Amino acid sequence: MTYKTHARIDGPLVMIGFGSIGRGTLPLILRHIDFDRDQFTVIEPSSEYAGLLAEHGIKHLQLALTEANFAETLRSLFPNGQGFVVNLSVDVDSIELMKLCQTLGVQYIDTVVEPWPGFYFNSPLPNAERTNYPLREKVRALGKSYPGGPTAVSCCGANPGMVSWLLKEALLRLAADTGVKADPKTQADWALLAMTLGVNGVHIAERDTQVSARPKPQGTFVNSWSVDGLLSEGYQPAELGWGTHEKKLPPNGHKFKSGPGYAIWIDRPGADTRVRSWCPDVGPQFGLVVTHNESLSIPDYYTVWDGPRALYRPTCHYAYHPCPDAILSLHETNGAGKLPENKHILTADEITEGGDDLGVFIYGHAKGAMWYGSRLTIAEARALAPYQNATGMQVTSAVLAAMVWVAENPRMGFVEADEMDHARCLEVQRPYLGRIECHYTDWTPLQNRINRFAEDRDDSDPWQFTNFLAV
Amino acid sequence: MTYKTHARIDGPLVMIGFGSIGRGTLPLILRHIDFDRDQFTVIEPSSEYAGLLAEHGIKHLQLALTEANFAETLRSLFPNGQGFVVNLSVDVDSIELMKLCQTLGVQYIDTVVEPWPGFYFNSPLPNAERTNYPLREKVRALGKSYPGGPTAVSCCGANPGMVSWLLKEALLRLAADTGVKADPKTQADWALLAMTLGVNGVHIAERDTQVSARPKPQGTFVNSWSVDGLLSEGYQPAELGWGTHEKKLPPNGHKFKSGPGYAIWIDRPGADTRVRSWCPDVGPQFGLVVTHNESLSIPDYYTVWDGPRALYRPTCHYAYHPCPDAILSLHETNGAGKLPENKHILTADEITEGGDDLGVFIYGHAKGAMWYGSRLTIAEARALAPYQNATGMQVTSAVLAAMVWVAENPRMGFVEADEMDHARCLEVQRPYLGRIECHYTDWTPLQNRINRFAEDRDDSDPWQFTNFLAV
Repeated sequence: MTYKTHARIDGPLVMIGFGSIGRGTLPLILRHIDFDRDQFTVIEPSSEYAGLLAEHGIKHLQLALTEANFAETLRSLFPNGQGFVVNLSVDVDSIELMKLCQTLGVQYIDTVVEPWPGFYFNSPLPNAERTNYPLREKVRALGKSYPGGPTAVSCCGANPGMVSWLLKEALLRLAADTGVKADPKTQADWALLAMTLGVNGVHIAERDTQVSARPKPQGTFVNSWSVDGLLSEGYQPAELGWGTHEKKLPPNGHKFKSGPGYAIWIDRPGADTRVRSWCPDVGPQFGLVVTHNESLSIPDYYTVWDGPRALYRPTCHYAYHPCPDAILSLHETNGAGKLPENKHILTADEITEGGDDLGVFIYGHAKGAMWYGSRLTIAEARALAPYQNATGMQVTSAVLAAMVWVAENPRMGFVEADEMDHARCLEVQRPYLGRIECHYTDWTPLQNRINRFAEDRDDSDPWQFTNFLAV
Repeated sequence: MTYKTHARIDGPLVMIGFGSIGRGTLPLILRHIDFDRDQFTVIEPSSEYAGLLAEHGIKHLQLALTEANFAETLRSLFPNGQGFVVNLSVDVDSIELMKLCQTLGVQYIDTVVEPWPGFYFNSPLPNAERTNYPLREKVRALGKSYPGGPTAVSCCGANPGMVSWLLKEALLRLAADTGVKADPKTQADWALLAMTLGVNGVHIAERDTQVSARPKPQGTFVNSWSVDGLLSEGYQPAELGWGTHEKKLPPNGHKFKSGPGYAIWIDRPGADTRVRSWCPDVGPQFGLVVTHNESLSIPDYYTVWDGPRALYRPTCHYAYHPCPDAILSLHETNGAGKLPENKHILTADEITEGGDDLGVFIYGHAKGAMWYGSRLTIAEARALAPYQNATGMQVTSAVLAAMVWVAENPRMGFVEADEMDHARCLEVQRPYLGRIECHYTDWTPLQNRINRFAEDRDDSDPWQFTNFLAV
């Protein structure tokens, strides 16, 4: 089979980290990006997949990047003021890498604003500062120092990343379906469109149904993607973009004391903060408000300003239903009150059925609510590309799309997914997303209760966050 | 193999309900109780297991007992003022059956105070009245009308039931291990012993680890025992015996407005009310505060009165970790906000591994905390008796033990498990309980947190309910 080459990358191509997402991204890069094979280096401390790299003729620098060695290491790999860093690692500070890449004249992409070790666990910081808001604000502030610098994409996998592109398609679809004229070009146009459509909020609504025939072993945390990744973000405080229609903070909810204030945080772990949400496969379901960059970038991007006052902003957060084994793992981990000793990522081979539905659930508009997203089964994922399950495929294909866009737009400075060309990115990614579907529903979070119990309920407005939250 | 006959039952023996517990109880009755085979009738509306009954030469009255037909039906089955009713049904009012059995001169046992349909779901009653407290108070009041009547055991399966016997063994063990002299004979003696030992509270602490090789089908509620049973009690309000050491009601917690007030209720479903608890297999774990009769009978039985004032009473509640498929089912059901359409009970054949640890976790005493209970694997259960998994075996063997005790004590009027001879009952039951183990631990609910989040925490006393509750 031949694949379309979407772009060429000149100079050294360095991938940092070769975990489940790195391995899954590899075949997509090989298929769709033109580059010099002898210029491709993977920096990865583990030797577990050294054979795979050797097989593909890719250099393996077996090393853990640290505060002490990262600058020297990367300087030596990029001697000529060109090249590309694909950062898919954990425990390597994204902001430090982004600064260095600007200095080296190198393009950059990552999927999360990752800090050095010591932030996610056992941190001396107060909870307000263990959120993503200060991390993102730091990236945004730094970006202002590098206008027109080498393009550096912050936080672009499936989510954060792809979901911002899907949101734009969803808004255009909603505009078309409700007879609203729409031809947004700028950030202000898009924000105005969301306001005009009456969108109160956006869930990043995911249902992962991938299962294996082996019951989850007791004491092992099982997930369909990085266990460390889920634990890190899951035990940050829950965090969400805070819409202008919201009347009341949730219990233990806090505003941020500085910055533009598009978000709030809740003083409980995202991995244990449930909301009522909706996905096409099952309808109403619980999702977890795990903090993510898109919960911040989307409300920021879609704010309509009236001078210093936010006239409009949607609420936005992740509503994540992980795979069944991860639900059990979180229950076990929360119940034990300590991090798991054993970790396992379900491979495409061992998953017997299920898939991943990942999209945006936008609510409050003329048609009530709409889910718009990718529905990809494990069987489809297996047929599309090696080394990954459905969850991985949605991430790696977004990384590919972003790399293509960066190659085509090499001097944009710091950007997030919301600021990229969603149509071009989805054009590249779409073959890997299974079915992109649009579902309208008349469900609201005020519906469906088994008996009646005490709850903080606002019957005058179904779309208040208080109605979604199930504590 | 020959089995010891423990008792003889004269006259008609009628089992109402032939679900998973009825079927599992059958072989134990056949083994250990002497009765006339042609006097045994099972009343069960379903024909699913008619063949099994026929095989054993047991009459099958295929009928659903209702308010309209129950009295006439039972009158015709007990014409001679003797016999025994084993009520293992759902949707048949226990209190009405108990009254009728007194009139008919018939012994009686059940495992729950079951109401007619309309109580558990879609009830017009306020939540305070959908609890077990008023049901139990009604039984206790009724019992006062029948002193020396035919013995009628209310609520005697594994829990409620067996756990009350285990609690007595545990208290004697704790007394021996801490050098406290103990020879309790009366209720007052037992209550005084618990007070002397400094027991602040009792969890009925269960961990069910039974799993099958088939992943839980989406949309199907899977459990290791009656799905209807779990749903019924799980969507009653959480309810617990309220110790005299407790300083503060939990959020949405309420005292009862009438009666002796040994319990409180929480205005949230027990199936969604988590406590930090402890079981020997895994150590710290979440348990669910599903309401149960033992959460009421134990604090009532162990109250030390000083005139009208309760001088001492332990906190007591269920801390139930159901099997993994039931955890997933509850997450799905709570998230959907509606009852499941499909239900499945895991059979002994399809369970591949795991077992059920069910015991009492008693805390606050000189040795900190102790778990004492039955640890029974699926392999052991399969080897012991047909038609049941480990969970069922702990219930059915308690029903057997209670039947034996009733046969030996035929005119005790209304009793609960706490009032029976625990030593005799456990003597009958023990061969079916796997290993009875005693574990001390220095764990407290103040230990083990992943990062720190807002919580209502009382560091001055680890054994306050507020420290156990994880909302």
